[in-house]
Amino acid sequence: MTNRDARTPASVQDIKSQEAGKSIGWHKAYVEGSRPDIRVPVRQVHLTNGQSVTLYDTSGPYTDPLVETDVRRGLAPLRENWIVARGDTEEYAGRPVRPEDDGIKHTSPRGGLRNLDAVFPGRPRQPRRSRDGKAVTQLAYARRGEITPEMEFVAVRENVSPEVVRDEIAAGRAVLPANVNHPEIEPMIIGKRFLVKVNANIGNSAVTSSIEEEVEKMTWATRWGADTVMDLSTGRNIHTTREWVLRNSPVPIGTVPLYQALEKVDGKAEELTWEIYKDTVIEQAEQGVDYMTVHAGVRLPYVPLTANRKTGIVSRGGSIMAAWCLAHHKESFLYENFEELCEILAAYDVTYSLGDGLRPGSIADANDEAQFAELKTLGELNRIAKRFNVQTMIEGPGHVPMHKIKENIDLQQEICDEAPFYTLGPLTTDVAPAYDHITSGIGAAMIAWWGTAMLCYVTPKEHLGLPNRDDVKTGVITYKIAAHAADLAKGHPGAQEWDDALSDARFEFRWEDQFNLALDPDTAREFHDETLPAEPAKTAHFCSMCGPKFCSMKISQDIRRQHGGSQEEIEEGMAQKSKEFAAAGNRVYLPLAD
Amino acid sequence: MTNRDARTPASVQDIKSQEAGKSIGWHKAYVEGSRPDIRVPVRQVHLTNGQSVTLYDTSGPYTDPLVETDVRRGLAPLRENWIVARGDTEEYAGRPVRPEDDGIKHTSPRGGLRNLDAVFPGRPRQPRRSRDGKAVTQLAYARRGEITPEMEFVAVRENVSPEVVRDEIAAGRAVLPANVNHPEIEPMIIGKRFLVKVNANIGNSAVTSSIEEEVEKMTWATRWGADTVMDLSTGRNIHTTREWVLRNSPVPIGTVPLYQALEKVDGKAEELTWEIYKDTVIEQAEQGVDYMTVHAGVRLPYVPLTANRKTGIVSRGGSIMAAWCLAHHKESFLYENFEELCEILAAYDVTYSLGDGLRPGSIADANDEAQFAELKTLGELNRIAKRFNVQTMIEGPGHVPMHKIKENIDLQQEICDEAPFYTLGPLTTDVAPAYDHITSGIGAAMIAWWGTAMLCYVTPKEHLGLPNRDDVKTGVITYKIAAHAADLAKGHPGAQEWDDALSDARFEFRWEDQFNLALDPDTAREFHDETLPAEPAKTAHFCSMCGPKFCSMKISQDIRRQHGGSQEEIEEGMAQKSKEFAAAGNRVYLPLAD
Repeated sequence: MTNRDARTPASVQDIKSQEAGKSIGWHKAYVEGSRPDIRVPVRQVHLTNGQSVTLYDTSGPYTDPLVETDVRRGLAPLRENWIVARGDTEEYAGRPVRPEDDGIKHTSPRGGLRNLDAVFPGRPRQPRRSRDGKAVTQLAYARRGEITPEMEFVAVRENVSPEVVRDEIAAGRAVLPANVNHPEIEPMIIGKRFLVKVNANIGNSAVTSSIEEEVEKMTWATRWGADTVMDLSTGRNIHTTREWVLRNSPVPIGTVPLYQALEKVDGKAEELTWEIYKDTVIEQAEQGVDYMTVHAGVRLPYVPLTANRKTGIVSRGGSIMAAWCLAHHKESFLYENFEELCEILAAYDVTYSLGDGLRPGSIADANDEAQFAELKTLGELNRIAKRFNVQTMIEGPGHVPMHKIKENIDLQQEICDEAPFYTLGPLTTDVAPAYDHITSGIGAAMIAWWGTAMLCYVTPKEHLGLPNRDDVKTGVITYKIAAHAADLAKGHPGAQEWDDALSDARFEFRWEDQFNLALDPDTAREFHDETLPAEPAKTAHFCSMCGPKFCSMKISQDIRRQHGGSQEEIEEGMAQKSKEFAAAGNRVYLPLAD
Repeated sequence: MTNRDARTPASVQDIKSQEAGKSIGWHKAYVEGSRPDIRVPVRQVHLTNGQSVTLYDTSGPYTDPLVETDVRRGLAPLRENWIVARGDTEEYAGRPVRPEDDGIKHTSPRGGLRNLDAVFPGRPRQPRRSRDGKAVTQLAYARRGEITPEMEFVAVRENVSPEVVRDEIAAGRAVLPANVNHPEIEPMIIGKRFLVKVNANIGNSAVTSSIEEEVEKMTWATRWGADTVMDLSTGRNIHTTREWVLRNSPVPIGTVPLYQALEKVDGKAEELTWEIYKDTVIEQAEQGVDYMTVHAGVRLPYVPLTANRKTGIVSRGGSIMAAWCLAHHKESFLYENFEELCEILAAYDVTYSLGDGLRPGSIADANDEAQFAELKTLGELNRIAKRFNVQTMIEGPGHVPMHKIKENIDLQQEICDEAPFYTLGPLTTDVAPAYDHITSGIGAAMIAWWGTAMLCYVTPKEHLGLPNRDDVKTGVITYKIAAHAADLAKGHPGAQEWDDALSDARFEFRWEDQFNLALDPDTAREFHDETLPAEPAKTAHFCSMCGPKFCSMKISQDIRRQHGGSQEEIEEGMAQKSKEFAAAGNRVYLPLAD
């Protein structure tokens, strides 16, 4: 999204790249709202023609040279005053953190944190929750007609009126994930009326990865445009990793509490209980998790529907719940206790992301009975959540061939009263492991065009291994492409200005502007320099595709010079101008030295 | 496309990877037609469960260890006997090759080929053309009701009847590009009734690249699945580079003769003449070019329509013709002489690829008046070409946002009597230079689903530089994904069997089979090994996403074991089976050592 000159940056600071003195051509700036503590970050790209383009920015204070950041202290609690001022929450002692929260058993021979330094050293804090009887969710505020600072922040960010934000949230068509215990975030909104958002998954696993890596992946993902981050850690140090991530994250953090609950019962799904699960949800809510994936739609009667699938249940959460249901031959404890869960989430303003535990894991299983049975239950749960003022979005597939994608979003919107749809891809074919960012980027762009509000990224490592730093970047960039392509296709106001600015720069051979406007300026510049490394080439009126002797862009500029003006003038003056063209030497290109 | 066990390989030979003794898990095989000289190549993937999967193969003899290949000799002339047997063509002396064919002027101080060794040393040959009055195109044969060996070859390749091939060609809905002077090709077909095809562009330019590199790019592109290759060379040695590429190419080769013609007039568009152009077309037809892009739709009255575009004319061919029209204030010599051009192409069975010289070069310019004015002219030219029995496809854009894509294919099909559409992407946003394989892969998948027959690939270097070997591979793989996703969405018979085979392997933890079935086995294997490098991990019943303690796929297998069988049995036996599950220890995962 871009909105040239529509906003007044409150502060514009040069950001220099690592290479001394080399400007990277854009600046962190802020747009002020109605009060000085509403400062919405933007990326201000300064063009060589004197114009500037303002882009949505998810990178947080890390790209602001005026802000000192230190991952050991965490980010400043931007929203704290807003939360306190509402007077409807209170601090309390909170649940004591136990060794098993980090996967450590007293009886374990390998007891103790692998790295005791890892305990987050930042400012001491007590958790906060609603005072009794108070409804403290953005949904509750919106329904009461209130416009919170968070809503105004988002309105500035999306370039819409605060009333639109409030109304979309009130109608349940958008969510503003903002746990009262995560004051560090820069508020953002997820809904089809707004810019399409992208989530990046991080998380260590039993096999590999460390706390430091996960925090670094989070800041790296948001630098490239991730709007939210899910911490899907499954190994040890889950609690501590999450604390580090939350305290340093400028974007909402999502989790799947079931993963941690399973660790607490040593991976034995049948030993899970509602109590262990509930305790884990409270633990995470107190830390500040903004939205939680809850697989409450995986009901006992649906499990047999997956028996003859090609790839069964591929959702981890879904298969955990299926295993539990089978082991006990009982209805899911998540489904049975859903109302109590709503009460807990409401107390912290944790947003539901109702998980699609029965999503298809292959082209063959797309849109089948199991998948749509669960979707109907998600619709039912969505209505219950709304009764408790809990903000709710709905997760979607998965692996779906192109001709079956639209049915997914259409059914979801109908069954779930237009609650935001949050999809993983979908992957449009199964045959390209190592390229599933692309197989799924295709499906993601399409389903977002048709109304999906947030896209969960897929990296090149999907199905093969854990993503590294490069994979995270590739996944985020691919999904930003899908999201922006959808914004364009939806005719989102202002979306095309970004494309137009870049195309203008391309047409006018302003190479540096092309790079700085690119989703990934570094790679664009690097690719250009591979073929034409010399600095003068960046201002040359040609590129490596055609070379200096003939350039189609150059010819078009000649045409524009001749034929600019009204259609009438064009018709009248054409013969005359053609003569001039010939008289001027029929120059269809500029010499190299020009 | 896959078709398990439906074909009998005539020969199956082990192909070993470079690393000694390490099987790469697939074999080059051939499916025989009705006569022994119709041998259709396939890639036979052998699975560890004893099954095999047959995939379409474009890699030519290079992947057959029984065939000795030598780029200095060229490939065997597979089709020669078929062409000779028809008795409707004759060899003739041909046009003498002149220094200027390679961009060398007698007066040039840099005269002479840069590398005299570069002259193709292979078998001497004389060009061939139709005997007078004979119609020698596949279209002419199809209209007469004949099924040529080429058609039968294609029918086997596509797993359809030869009659379907003949009828689609006769109706002009498909083309079988096969110049009588390119007997080396393994015939293939382009039409919406068939598998979606992918073209890869290669070609040196004035700035960089050598003959050797271009030949290598061609074999590399076809190894990864390119169905045709366009040689878009623009620098020196154009004639010689093309000779090397043609003599070594197992796939049809396309060109844009205008590029070479422009070189002959030293890059001055206004000095182009019909005579120079015609001579170049004959030069290239004698060499064996299978299809030629001809920008005959860029008419004088359309040029002013581009004056107020954001990015003017971005097609090189389009801008050359526009410059010529402007310089002379005359109608395009290609449009004016189109019938004579048809006669030439018909004599060699060169297929038209009617170029979209006014395609949009930015989101802002999509679907505008200039673009659709040209499309109407292409419809008119298509009908003229058909009168001369010239096979014809139509080129399409370009840069188009998702919501405007369908109009392109729908209009093209209507205006051009369902002639095959051949599109470049389209790119669905302008903001991601360095990732335009992805911005365009999205659009390519969609437009192919809706009926486009061939997709011209876009590499990560688009807009930035010339693609290297890695870029060519990335571009081809991305476009194979788009093409296959479209085959699935179109419900192409057999397309899903490939996905199913890979998903079966995934569900059953047959890692080696997953790799070997992947579009890019090398990268899939490499990514897996980054996280879990040990050889035993490839047979382990878990992967790095969940680790050994909990695996959703494993749980699904348990479910299947319990609930396999009819729905009735499932309902009846569920409680009982759940008890057994518990009795067996509620094992939802296998221990690592299992």
